[in-house]
Amino acid sequence: MKQFMNSKDALVTEAIDGLVRSAGGALARLDGFPHIKVVVRADWDRARDGARVALVSGGGSGHEPSHAGFVGRGMLTAAVCGDVFASPSVDAVLAGILAVTGKAGCLLIVKNYTGDRLNFGLAAERARAFGLKVAMVVVDDDVALPDLPQARGVAGTLFVHKIAGALAEQGADLETVAAAAQAVIRGTVSIGMSLDTCTVPGSPKEDRIGQGKAELGLGIHGEAGVEQVDFTGARAAMGMVVDRLLPHVGSSDHVALLNNLGATTPLEMSVLAEELARSALGGRINWIIGPAALMTSLDMHGFSVSLLPVTAEQVEALAAPVAPPAWPGLAGLGEVTIRPLPDGLSPIQPEPSGHPARRALLERCCTALMAIEGDLNALDAKSGDGDTGSTLAGAARALLARLDRLPLADQTQLFRAVGMELSQTMGGSSGVLLAIFFAAAGDASASGKDWIGALSAGLTRVMQVGGAKLGDRTMIDALAPALLALPSGLGAAAAAARKGAEATAQMTRAKAGRASYLTADKLAGHNDPGAEGVARLFERLAAGA
Amino acid sequence: MKQFMNSKDALVTEAIDGLVRSAGGALARLDGFPHIKVVVRADWDRARDGARVALVSGGGSGHEPSHAGFVGRGMLTAAVCGDVFASPSVDAVLAGILAVTGKAGCLLIVKNYTGDRLNFGLAAERARAFGLKVAMVVVDDDVALPDLPQARGVAGTLFVHKIAGALAEQGADLETVAAAAQAVIRGTVSIGMSLDTCTVPGSPKEDRIGQGKAELGLGIHGEAGVEQVDFTGARAAMGMVVDRLLPHVGSSDHVALLNNLGATTPLEMSVLAEELARSALGGRINWIIGPAALMTSLDMHGFSVSLLPVTAEQVEALAAPVAPPAWPGLAGLGEVTIRPLPDGLSPIQPEPSGHPARRALLERCCTALMAIEGDLNALDAKSGDGDTGSTLAGAARALLARLDRLPLADQTQLFRAVGMELSQTMGGSSGVLLAIFFAAAGDASASGKDWIGALSAGLTRVMQVGGAKLGDRTMIDALAPALLALPSGLGAAAAAARKGAEATAQMTRAKAGRASYLTADKLAGHNDPGAEGVARLFERLAAGA
Repeated sequence: MKQFMNSKDALVTEAIDGLVRSAGGALARLDGFPHIKVVVRADWDRARDGARVALVSGGGSGHEPSHAGFVGRGMLTAAVCGDVFASPSVDAVLAGILAVTGKAGCLLIVKNYTGDRLNFGLAAERARAFGLKVAMVVVDDDVALPDLPQARGVAGTLFVHKIAGALAEQGADLETVAAAAQAVIRGTVSIGMSLDTCTVPGSPKEDRIGQGKAELGLGIHGEAGVEQVDFTGARAAMGMVVDRLLPHVGSSDHVALLNNLGATTPLEMSVLAEELARSALGGRINWIIGPAALMTSLDMHGFSVSLLPVTAEQVEALAAPVAPPAWPGLAGLGEVTIRPLPDGLSPIQPEPSGHPARRALLERCCTALMAIEGDLNALDAKSGDGDTGSTLAGAARALLARLDRLPLADQTQLFRAVGMELSQTMGGSSGVLLAIFFAAAGDASASGKDWIGALSAGLTRVMQVGGAKLGDRTMIDALAPALLALPSGLGAAAAAARKGAEATAQMTRAKAGRASYLTADKLAGHNDPGAEGVARLFERLAAGA
Repeated sequence: MKQFMNSKDALVTEAIDGLVRSAGGALARLDGFPHIKVVVRADWDRARDGARVALVSGGGSGHEPSHAGFVGRGMLTAAVCGDVFASPSVDAVLAGILAVTGKAGCLLIVKNYTGDRLNFGLAAERARAFGLKVAMVVVDDDVALPDLPQARGVAGTLFVHKIAGALAEQGADLETVAAAAQAVIRGTVSIGMSLDTCTVPGSPKEDRIGQGKAELGLGIHGEAGVEQVDFTGARAAMGMVVDRLLPHVGSSDHVALLNNLGATTPLEMSVLAEELARSALGGRINWIIGPAALMTSLDMHGFSVSLLPVTAEQVEALAAPVAPPAWPGLAGLGEVTIRPLPDGLSPIQPEPSGHPARRALLERCCTALMAIEGDLNALDAKSGDGDTGSTLAGAARALLARLDRLPLADQTQLFRAVGMELSQTMGGSSGVLLAIFFAAAGDASASGKDWIGALSAGLTRVMQVGGAKLGDRTMIDALAPALLALPSGLGAAAAAARKGAEATAQMTRAKAGRASYLTADKLAGHNDPGAEGVARLFERLAAGA
């Protein structure tokens, strides 16, 4: 068993209970398990509400959300569920009819399979013997088998549910609702394609469709497609589907229903929607329902397209709001609305300006970082990939080369420019983190912080974004105490940074960054190279001051 | 390639265009393909609407409908999409922020992955440099890895989108929206389980999870679960998930979010909903979102459960209507509402009554059918399974045995009783069709038709329900002309039936019933056994009359 079920026999009844229970009181089921599996609108009282036409549909299970998922105001009044891919019994259908049908009567919406036709047909007879008005329509939208007059009923059935449902909700009489349903059936055509077969619970999976192949014109009960075709991609696949539909389609406005047969990902379904819109049919499709799972075939990796040429009244009926959350709504299918990119993506180049003291400090920092490159690489090699020194030195070299173009006289702009520079020249997470550090320092500076306060604000933001705290064995363990001590001078800062860096050698469980994937014995006794770099930098600055 | 796409590189951009195009004008995208993939509300003008807080989320693709599918009134203002399972770039996030953020600022909702944190974090800094108010929250709801302080962000993110979205829609300021989001994040816990790995486009499928195994505590990027467990069914599976959640859950009211990770069928998801409700957690879950695909992992055959302890205000925010059709809504999780079966399923036994002429006719019919059993079986064996004679003779024997209990004096009740009898004693389609024939004859009789008219009405209904027409090589080809000739007497009817039966030998393309699956050479030259049976019956009745 590779399915989330408890047993094949309990699958449908447990699923129905789960559905009913999760519907917030909108659904109920009849007390006939396991033989009679009927889901009804909980708010429907046939004595009170039966002045409107009831809609009853159903068939074998395995096509969810069809049909129980479409029970609710504006769609079905009751759904009669068989076992997986098996028609419900006459008694079950009769129970569904009797449970919801009032004086306005009911319309049975049946997909064109012999079992369903017969069982719904006989149940209709029995219900008529009670004096109920019962009409029945048979949906036969599948164009896969052009020579068979008995076309199968597939996802186009949803057009019937929705349009008949809207009319019934408005209070149309049975004759009107049935005629409207029949008109929809006459107009609807569908065809499906799949890359794999479905997995029938309790049966071994059939491995019928080879690599590079797809089945075109398949049914929804695991039956083989009319033909196996070469599969070369979404565009060609949709092209074949459209080719089969085109002979049946006039030049009027159409609604398309793009149905996920089960296990197709939303990404793929959206690509298929795009291909449908770009296809030879695209210009005739004004509205779309989906892409969504509407009439599935268990976990089939496939899709189907249904088309209905529509009148304004039918569009209105398809667009009417309904209660079942499984109904995705009707939307216009149009061009892709494209907005221009906003201004500001190319950062404004700040006006270069001079400030000898800041320039000297920056130069000293860069020189210091370049000087410790080899030591830091060696330290990093003990617990990482040995490039911490090179990463920092590379950034220092790039910054030195840019000194003439930096806005040195404007502290806010300078922080931001350094951040921008580092994000462009340093690779990986460390570059982004240092860019965030200086950018946040720039923000704080703009709000009036002095340079130490600004750098502290930068540190706070880096900790927030990066998710590292003191004690996590990162450069923060040296930088945080250094910034705290900085008001007392560079010497104090250097001492604090050194103490912090030494402490990281005892932190054997890194909680952030790459070192978090290493075991304690790889870390013990070595300072974190980032923290060591900060300590060395402050020590060199203090020594030179 | 076993996916409906055109190329790995175009997958996400084409899917975005398909989504935008199918949204009926509700969505737009920025003009930055392929590097910048940002979907925005088409109705949102940052100058006009930016007095409300904008919500920006995103991350790698492959989690649809997250996040682009949740862009719309009441949820996200923009979604920034990376390639499959890859964080979007800083520029892409910045473009998203700048495109929608007005004077009220924006909230970035980020799942806890290093790439997302850093790229969203740096983009936030850049946006702040433009003077925009930007807050950022990081969702870390996954409890699969209890020792890692950096928990992953998974489907619980949807709670944040929805609650923050409702507040933003109501006009709450950025501080309020961010605090509400943070409160949701503190409360949310999630864990997932899968029966199979996902198929990453362009990569071979990893076959990591063996038969009878499941992965518990998996991530949404194909990374392995925390442990492989034995899979014995839906109940035990949900039990393990609930066990991992229980230590994190208090006794207050909770909302559960039941997420389909991709390829799990709706049937399975409903069974899982049922198991969740019945689990040790069930009593603490008052509301449910889903089951639905909310945060998928491509086509993963799995599910996740997210829990949020809620205040009344949060419930209200979760229940508020929104524009994106992918949001399934909030529903109460309660008991299964069970309605009693309707009266009328056990057919009323008619009062037996006598009518010598009808009794004699019925006896002659039954005797005739029993007499031709062997001949019809032999004929059927040439094109079928050789049981037509036995099926009809068996029904005749059963009817004969019931003669004393039939309401012979009441034509309407008699037709109905014969139909009921045949539906109970004849197997398969033929039994149901004959039951429909007699039941419909009963209906027609009740509306005042004489017996020939009633039988004709029965025939019309059988043709409608069974979908067979004259010329389709069925018993109708003999029965229809016989009933038409019957007013002229049994001899005329027999002659007409015979002519009709003989004509079926030339009908080499059966269009209904089982014979429709046979080739012409199997049918040519043999009468249809059903039609032959009707002809023989009328011939015997005529001979005996």
